[in-house]
Amino acid sequence: MKATGVVVEYNPLHNGHVYHAQQAKAATNADLIIAVMSGNFLQRGEPAFIDKWARTKMALASGVDIVFELPYRFATGHATVFAHGAISLLDAAGCTAFCFGSEDGDIEPFHNTLDLLDNNSEEYNQAIKNAMQEGLSYPMALNKAYDAVQPNTEKGGRLVDLSKPNNILGFHYMQAARTLNSSMMPTTIKRLGAEYHDDTLEVNKVASATGIRKSFFSTEKLDEVLNFIPESTKNILIEWQTERMNFGNWESFYPFLRFSILRDGPAHLSTIADLSEGIENLIYRAAKKNDTFQTFMNDIKSKRYTWTRIQRMLTHILTGFTKEMRSEIDVPAYLRLLGMTDKGRSYLSGRKKDLPLPLISKVAAFSNPSLDMDIQASDIYALAIGKGSIASKIGLDYTISPIMNNYFSGSPLK
Amino acid sequence: MKATGVVVEYNPLHNGHVYHAQQAKAATNADLIIAVMSGNFLQRGEPAFIDKWARTKMALASGVDIVFELPYRFATGHATVFAHGAISLLDAAGCTAFCFGSEDGDIEPFHNTLDLLDNNSEEYNQAIKNAMQEGLSYPMALNKAYDAVQPNTEKGGRLVDLSKPNNILGFHYMQAARTLNSSMMPTTIKRLGAEYHDDTLEVNKVASATGIRKSFFSTEKLDEVLNFIPESTKNILIEWQTERMNFGNWESFYPFLRFSILRDGPAHLSTIADLSEGIENLIYRAAKKNDTFQTFMNDIKSKRYTWTRIQRMLTHILTGFTKEMRSEIDVPAYLRLLGMTDKGRSYLSGRKKDLPLPLISKVAAFSNPSLDMDIQASDIYALAIGKGSIASKIGLDYTISPIMNNYFSGSPLK
Repeated sequence: MKATGVVVEYNPLHNGHVYHAQQAKAATNADLIIAVMSGNFLQRGEPAFIDKWARTKMALASGVDIVFELPYRFATGHATVFAHGAISLLDAAGCTAFCFGSEDGDIEPFHNTLDLLDNNSEEYNQAIKNAMQEGLSYPMALNKAYDAVQPNTEKGGRLVDLSKPNNILGFHYMQAARTLNSSMMPTTIKRLGAEYHDDTLEVNKVASATGIRKSFFSTEKLDEVLNFIPESTKNILIEWQTERMNFGNWESFYPFLRFSILRDGPAHLSTIADLSEGIENLIYRAAKKNDTFQTFMNDIKSKRYTWTRIQRMLTHILTGFTKEMRSEIDVPAYLRLLGMTDKGRSYLSGRKKDLPLPLISKVAAFSNPSLDMDIQASDIYALAIGKGSIASKIGLDYTISPIMNNYFSGSPLK
Repeated sequence: MKATGVVVEYNPLHNGHVYHAQQAKAATNADLIIAVMSGNFLQRGEPAFIDKWARTKMALASGVDIVFELPYRFATGHATVFAHGAISLLDAAGCTAFCFGSEDGDIEPFHNTLDLLDNNSEEYNQAIKNAMQEGLSYPMALNKAYDAVQPNTEKGGRLVDLSKPNNILGFHYMQAARTLNSSMMPTTIKRLGAEYHDDTLEVNKVASATGIRKSFFSTEKLDEVLNFIPESTKNILIEWQTERMNFGNWESFYPFLRFSILRDGPAHLSTIADLSEGIENLIYRAAKKNDTFQTFMNDIKSKRYTWTRIQRMLTHILTGFTKEMRSEIDVPAYLRLLGMTDKGRSYLSGRKKDLPLPLISKVAAFSNPSLDMDIQASDIYALAIGKGSIASKIGLDYTISPIMNNYFSGSPLK
């Protein structure tokens, strides 16, 4: 069986994601789709709207056959780290291709850009350094360096616009694949509809995940959203809020984040992963002063730090992820199975013995600092937004088996 | 002016406390009463019902002229540490006597007991060690050792019953005064009415603080309680709950305590002050399993650890008070003024220059690890139970000046 990989967050899964999975399968002539998905904390440095198991259920109901968890350390890293983790896992899972959504929609410009930067790597890296010394954020520095080397294009092939968020991620996936010397074939699909940062619903049937989340927070708009998500997503969202937890957003986590910051103080903050020197005092003062996450962020953000970069620091403060813990995790060390369809199951049973990484269905049977961190992240997520018996939501990594596509009849998550 | 010292918690202040202050003044022929009072966390290892400023207001309205804060490290220590801190401060404040409530009510048996233990200190200390090695808690070991040396009484004078909680504290005050070589004269007043652990209101006008707190949590009994507290206490309690914070109890602090325990893990717990070896795993497992403080405690308590001792550990976990921080604080290093009447003010202005410790009215002007911890404890208290704008309740140690007895007209706390 031939598998194509996708890298997803599904926060929550909407029609655009369904379209992407279908197209990825068709374009690569694959038998099944394998997704590597962020856990309970996401690439933009924020808690997921719903947890990894609820999103796994959505995935399995919408065209994905196997879901592996992208470990915390990679899921919450910047684009290079995120892509490295995700592409490593897809490669380890035996995918013959991977497919990403992009604003560009054409794979050739990505190849051209990679070649350009490879051929001018010295100049490119120096330009990044210079831009960062000027005080630019990392993404802006990349962009500026990219501009600087563009005149060197020899072939004259079209380059990809690296100011677009999905192009950037796709570029990093391809770069990771090249670094890993992966034999997976890269492909891309043009993203439909809403732009990444749009937060209002649009008239067509593809809306941004941001817009959908907003509608669920202001329930009077709930009807509007139903055009943009599969029926299964709707049911899972409703079941989630009724029975399991509140929807995750930073405001709900802020009391715990603030408690952390104020109790542990600036000196402790500086031991946290990704905390840049000097920002600890700024964060500490802002936590004292602000009762809402929104105003707290407004006090911290600056030209030097993107919103996303700050959110990643805050996620690490919340979860207690230190520089020391991060240094123990450099490469993905396991394939953590969150769920599979019957087809996914037969794919895996055929390959189990040849997988280059251990396949984990039961976390208790495996010990690894990265996995410990994933379990800890689940617990902190449940502590902050769990409803009813929170104790029953602690240690879910131990109690929930991989979701099967027949979960609608009798899974523990029902 | 002649001052008599009392050691108080006022959690909350009730008629029994008013009686004690009056009697203390009369019995020692004093001009004023100086109280050393625990801050926001108390000797039994729990958050105060209302904060230190609200309790200072109660004190000044009920016969106390000066309130100094007993620093966190001493306020949350076991009887020996608590008494050492409190008596040191009363001595430093220039009191010529101190007065404590006791079940005994007579000072002579305390002297007899002190003499007995001093004269048999070797046997006594050995008996304590033995009892603890048998697995008894510290208070029970003291008791057993005390029984062991009682036959040695030579004078035949009556000894004090050290199985009663207020007798025990009084004994430690006197022991501390003796160790400090203090010239203060010890006196005691028989406690009236309810026993320390009673939690139902009684028919006379003196009720336990525990009973009063319970009534405020189940507001339908609020009328009953009014017979047992001064009008000023009532007004301050109502103002507190309406305008400032929820009433403090462990259930409100439990989400933060639990977050701490689960996020930081057993290895970190073992760095916390007073955490006995081995209990960290028990605490960690109990935090996973229990959604309420009550059931959590039931999982931890055992013959080896008294409820109070466990609560003190939990307080330190909550506030982040480590063994290292504790080692930096051995003796009280300042007199932190929480409030005073006009009479208290003239007493202090006459003595300011002769005080053996710095007198602190503004915390910003003074730097000390113990004071930092007091400020931190205030902030954590406000984070967990503050109402409305919590930001305005962070750093209160910086913004609230010592309470004056005329606070009813225009203090910042009003």
